[in-house]
Amino acid sequence: MGGDLAPEATVEGAALAARDFGIEVVLVGDRRVVERELARNHAAILPITIVHASEVVSMSEEPVEAVLAKPNSSLHVGYEMLKRGEGDAFLSAGNSGATAMAAMVILGNLAGVDRPAMALPVPSGRDHALLIDGGINVEVKAFNLVEFAVMGTAYARHVSGIIRPRVGILSDGAEGFNGNDLTRSAAVTLRAMAPDINYIGNITGRDINRGTADVVVTDGFSGNIVLKIMEGFGSFMARELREFLGAGLRGKLAYLLVHKRVSALQQRLDTSELGGAPLLGVNGVAMIAHGSSNARTIRNAIRTSAGEALVRQVNTEIVELMCKIPPGARPAIRPAGERIGALFNLLRERLVRMEAAPSK
Amino acid sequence: MGGDLAPEATVEGAALAARDFGIEVVLVGDRRVVERELARNHAAILPITIVHASEVVSMSEEPVEAVLAKPNSSLHVGYEMLKRGEGDAFLSAGNSGATAMAAMVILGNLAGVDRPAMALPVPSGRDHALLIDGGINVEVKAFNLVEFAVMGTAYARHVSGIIRPRVGILSDGAEGFNGNDLTRSAAVTLRAMAPDINYIGNITGRDINRGTADVVVTDGFSGNIVLKIMEGFGSFMARELREFLGAGLRGKLAYLLVHKRVSALQQRLDTSELGGAPLLGVNGVAMIAHGSSNARTIRNAIRTSAGEALVRQVNTEIVELMCKIPPGARPAIRPAGERIGALFNLLRERLVRMEAAPSK
Repeated sequence: MGGDLAPEATVEGAALAARDFGIEVVLVGDRRVVERELARNHAAILPITIVHASEVVSMSEEPVEAVLAKPNSSLHVGYEMLKRGEGDAFLSAGNSGATAMAAMVILGNLAGVDRPAMALPVPSGRDHALLIDGGINVEVKAFNLVEFAVMGTAYARHVSGIIRPRVGILSDGAEGFNGNDLTRSAAVTLRAMAPDINYIGNITGRDINRGTADVVVTDGFSGNIVLKIMEGFGSFMARELREFLGAGLRGKLAYLLVHKRVSALQQRLDTSELGGAPLLGVNGVAMIAHGSSNARTIRNAIRTSAGEALVRQVNTEIVELMCKIPPGARPAIRPAGERIGALFNLLRERLVRMEAAPSK
Repeated sequence: MGGDLAPEATVEGAALAARDFGIEVVLVGDRRVVERELARNHAAILPITIVHASEVVSMSEEPVEAVLAKPNSSLHVGYEMLKRGEGDAFLSAGNSGATAMAAMVILGNLAGVDRPAMALPVPSGRDHALLIDGGINVEVKAFNLVEFAVMGTAYARHVSGIIRPRVGILSDGAEGFNGNDLTRSAAVTLRAMAPDINYIGNITGRDINRGTADVVVTDGFSGNIVLKIMEGFGSFMARELREFLGAGLRGKLAYLLVHKRVSALQQRLDTSELGGAPLLGVNGVAMIAHGSSNARTIRNAIRTSAGEALVRQVNTEIVELMCKIPPGARPAIRPAGERIGALFNLLRERLVRMEAAPSK
């Protein structure tokens, strides 16, 4: 029932997944509505069943409130089924805050996990990098950045098949003088986790699309900004491209010459082809699809959700890696060195002089 | 002396500004080097003078250390001149952290300002929006976001000529359930400042390039990420564009048809045409140019720096607007040397961070 184009796109996507990949799909929602849509998709012979849920969480509802006040929502019913083992994965294109909240409340967190996080593929180099957290945790502690690195590593290793995924922390510059308290503290812990975590250091916004790292660790506030800028800048560029490939005779002719390449680029930028973002750190496979998902995106997201490696290996690996986080690891504070001491003296002199100077 | 392409690009840019706009330029740096470059540019008849500075702050130096330890650097000498009234504006393409730090130490902050910030133009809609802070203040308080809104408003009003600049706070979604403690608290203050500040609410990363707001307020950590993603994504797209407009006969033919439009787009995306980012909130006109600035960028930055409105009106407006921030929104009033105290805190934070940083 969730998503801007639901129920049409979700049901059609389910039918496509069942038809193309033979995946068994359970549709949780208003039975009457879902049946009508299934009929429209000639899905009678497909391995699709319906489980009725009488309530719907809308896109604008406050997540906590929605989860607590609507025990019969499709979200609730779906996660309860997953918890009872009546399914391998649960996918929703609805209110992502509520989806994450319901997963945490109903499935619970994996052992050792403090904050589950959303991992999103972003275009990078010739392939994709995983950005985690994609917007669930707006305020985080340093430990959370560490667990995001752990969860991203497990996913990249088993789902993307990268043996030693390169993990970078998104910051405002190379390590040393840059970063904030959180990134600096998380870096110390991640460095101590070698070789379990292949931490490569800070990366900047410029590096995300360069293929510098396989896993880009950040808090949910910055993560959301990153994703939305890419979306916004991407459509800004697409608009511009359409404008000069399409206007006038020259533009139209140019378009005819290169339209296949333009489509290929658009497809590579369109992460919806990869289908959905996992909510990592919960006790089960919870998948979140973009609110604007069309049928094809839903189809792909169902394929990703049902992936053998995701269903069987990722969570086990997360729990194992979480155990390897050094207990209470914190940056060691070194005693003030000579350089710092000299600097303090210079600074004091300067300040004394400024205070003595007549104010303007 | 500062910038990746200095001294060639800076001196040539100065010669261009003097020639094209008749601006009087004082070049601060190694006299011998500057004279050689001026000779190369046939600048003898131009209104350019040289002031010698024996030291140079390099791009890799830690800002505090550089500012404190090199009293004869071109940065120091330049700002001291500005403070004595021997110039209207100071521009540097060097180490931006050191440039900002030197401005704060030597010029001091404007009355009421806690944290000066860098305002950067970003492509938006048919024009540009101003992103503030562009990376100077990595850790901020809610009050700082408010003063960034004030400073951005003053600049957009007088330099860009927008009478009621629309101010948005960069966040992870519309107001209500989104944002963090800082953005929510700053929003309350900004709303109370109507009509002096035209606060339009939260905006997301998606809105930055859409022309939704004229002033985009954010902390320096997120601001840096935003700018670098745009840079990175921009060159990613440029690479892709080059690849399909240039490969094979079809691509080359398409390029011939639309290359003028491609150049126009690139020029619009290239904010270096606007020339430099002001460091707002200091007692003077301090302008920061991108480290990779070429001669044309320097020329344009000099024109911006010397703009009548910037030199005469922006700082006055900032001080006036700062007075209108509701007293409750201000951090606790500090004793007599308030300005010095704030600076001391800033420097101390920086030093603590240096101690925590791994030694290289």
